[in-house]
Amino acid sequence: MTDQHSSAHDTSVTVIGLGPMGSALAHTLLGKGRSLTVWNRTPGKADGLVAEGAHRAATVADAVAASPVTIVCLNDYATMYQVFESTGALSGHALVNLNSGTPAEARTAADWAAERDLDYLDGAIMVPPSLIGHDGSVLLYSGARDVLDRHRETLADLGDPRHLGADPGLAVLFNTALLGMMYATLNGFLHAAALAGSANVPAAEFAEIALGWFMPVVLDPASLTEQAPNLDKGAYPGDQGTMQMNLNALEHIARTSVEQGVHPAQPQLMKQLAEQAIAQGHGTDNYFALFEILKNPRAAAS
Amino acid sequence: MTDQHSSAHDTSVTVIGLGPMGSALAHTLLGKGRSLTVWNRTPGKADGLVAEGAHRAATVADAVAASPVTIVCLNDYATMYQVFESTGALSGHALVNLNSGTPAEARTAADWAAERDLDYLDGAIMVPPSLIGHDGSVLLYSGARDVLDRHRETLADLGDPRHLGADPGLAVLFNTALLGMMYATLNGFLHAAALAGSANVPAAEFAEIALGWFMPVVLDPASLTEQAPNLDKGAYPGDQGTMQMNLNALEHIARTSVEQGVHPAQPQLMKQLAEQAIAQGHGTDNYFALFEILKNPRAAAS
Repeated sequence: MTDQHSSAHDTSVTVIGLGPMGSALAHTLLGKGRSLTVWNRTPGKADGLVAEGAHRAATVADAVAASPVTIVCLNDYATMYQVFESTGALSGHALVNLNSGTPAEARTAADWAAERDLDYLDGAIMVPPSLIGHDGSVLLYSGARDVLDRHRETLADLGDPRHLGADPGLAVLFNTALLGMMYATLNGFLHAAALAGSANVPAAEFAEIALGWFMPVVLDPASLTEQAPNLDKGAYPGDQGTMQMNLNALEHIARTSVEQGVHPAQPQLMKQLAEQAIAQGHGTDNYFALFEILKNPRAAAS
Repeated sequence: MTDQHSSAHDTSVTVIGLGPMGSALAHTLLGKGRSLTVWNRTPGKADGLVAEGAHRAATVADAVAASPVTIVCLNDYATMYQVFESTGALSGHALVNLNSGTPAEARTAADWAAERDLDYLDGAIMVPPSLIGHDGSVLLYSGARDVLDRHRETLADLGDPRHLGADPGLAVLFNTALLGMMYATLNGFLHAAALAGSANVPAAEFAEIALGWFMPVVLDPASLTEQAPNLDKGAYPGDQGTMQMNLNALEHIARTSVEQGVHPAQPQLMKQLAEQAIAQGHGTDNYFALFEILKNPRAAAS
């Protein structure tokens, strides 16, 4: 085995930032047998990891120099810039940054890394700390694909790595979009449970039908997926049901919410969005034409 | 076999109202071999069914008299009252009414039926016309359970019959709540797809991750169901994440929507609702404490 070969397989790794998520990443890597270096602004947070065999770096520059790849898990991009302020150039090392932020911030960070001659990959963690390294854990990455390919073995310890594209902003954007979908779905369930509760139906009893049957069967993700290519085509045939029919249903939901004393703002907003879609000429299209209003609100308002 | 026995097993059935859904019900019952009587305000709409063997009733009273159970599928309760205006008493027959409406309207209809000495069951159809009578079709019923039990064999032809309770308003309320959940989930997906689209990600590509992985795995209905009993207890331990942390995430989603030029109203409303929850003292509770705000908006506003 040559040195070069051995260097290509150097899977030692550094973690910067030891909050709940950073600690979960570090513990997972240590548990999978990686040689681990850690750094945290408050050094005491590394004590437990050091006791388990991690190396404590004295400075951020030392931390990055210790491994071919450094995983950064800080609060936001601004914190990363602060932490790296005094490091100077770190040529030949890779930075994988996992905080959340906006796509514009992620693109700026990629430029910032390039100025420091750092290989840079932006990423987003899609599971809570407790699931890191377990089956079903997924991490989204975007930007330089070769950075992922070179360090795939190490990064795969944390969860299934998915590369979304060359635009460094994609990982944080997908993260934001998926969280938004999660909150909308949760809010929809909670509002529905509140409606059922207005007739003294226990949430547990409602959940049995709403989540045990309706969501998996009627809101079947596979059949929703079949609709997605129509969004890209702008094809919204209304033969199975029109926006106007859906508006009637949304008006009914809003009215029932008021009648039952349940918070009506969510169905009222959905009703207004359907009205905007109709005002934009989508009255005889199907409900998915709402996509046009959501992706282009300025046109909708004009 | 006695007459009584044969009468108890008289599974002939009447359908009143032959719009798209009523026609689907009638065709399904005919296809399953039931002796079918139909009535529609515009008699021509029955021609196809009559050609296939259905009996056309001249009046609503004749239609109801023809079968032990009559399924009513009209636009709303007001239309049902109009259609039945001149029928007089129809003792000993059962009416199963499947239009949508509010719980208060359903309760009034039950009283209206009692005055006419009609057995009455209120119901809601949870699938589109094309799925009536097929696997996965579900109809919700509420009110007099014995009406369902007596005509279960006939009603089961249309879909799995589920009885929700003695309150006649429950079926339409569940229907409304489940539809609201459906729209919220769809809107959440469409908004997320619009966010991804703002970085030129095709909806079909986004759907692969959002619906192919995130929704079934992270938004797993089974794990949501486990939370439901906590809603009934008002138990919202924030040790895995607080309302304040979720508010930060919602603010980020709203800000990113604005930055990406995507319609921000949905995340902005969810942010406001989380703020209301915090103002009501739920800042260190988990996100499900939003249930308290949704079910009791007046307390939230006070």
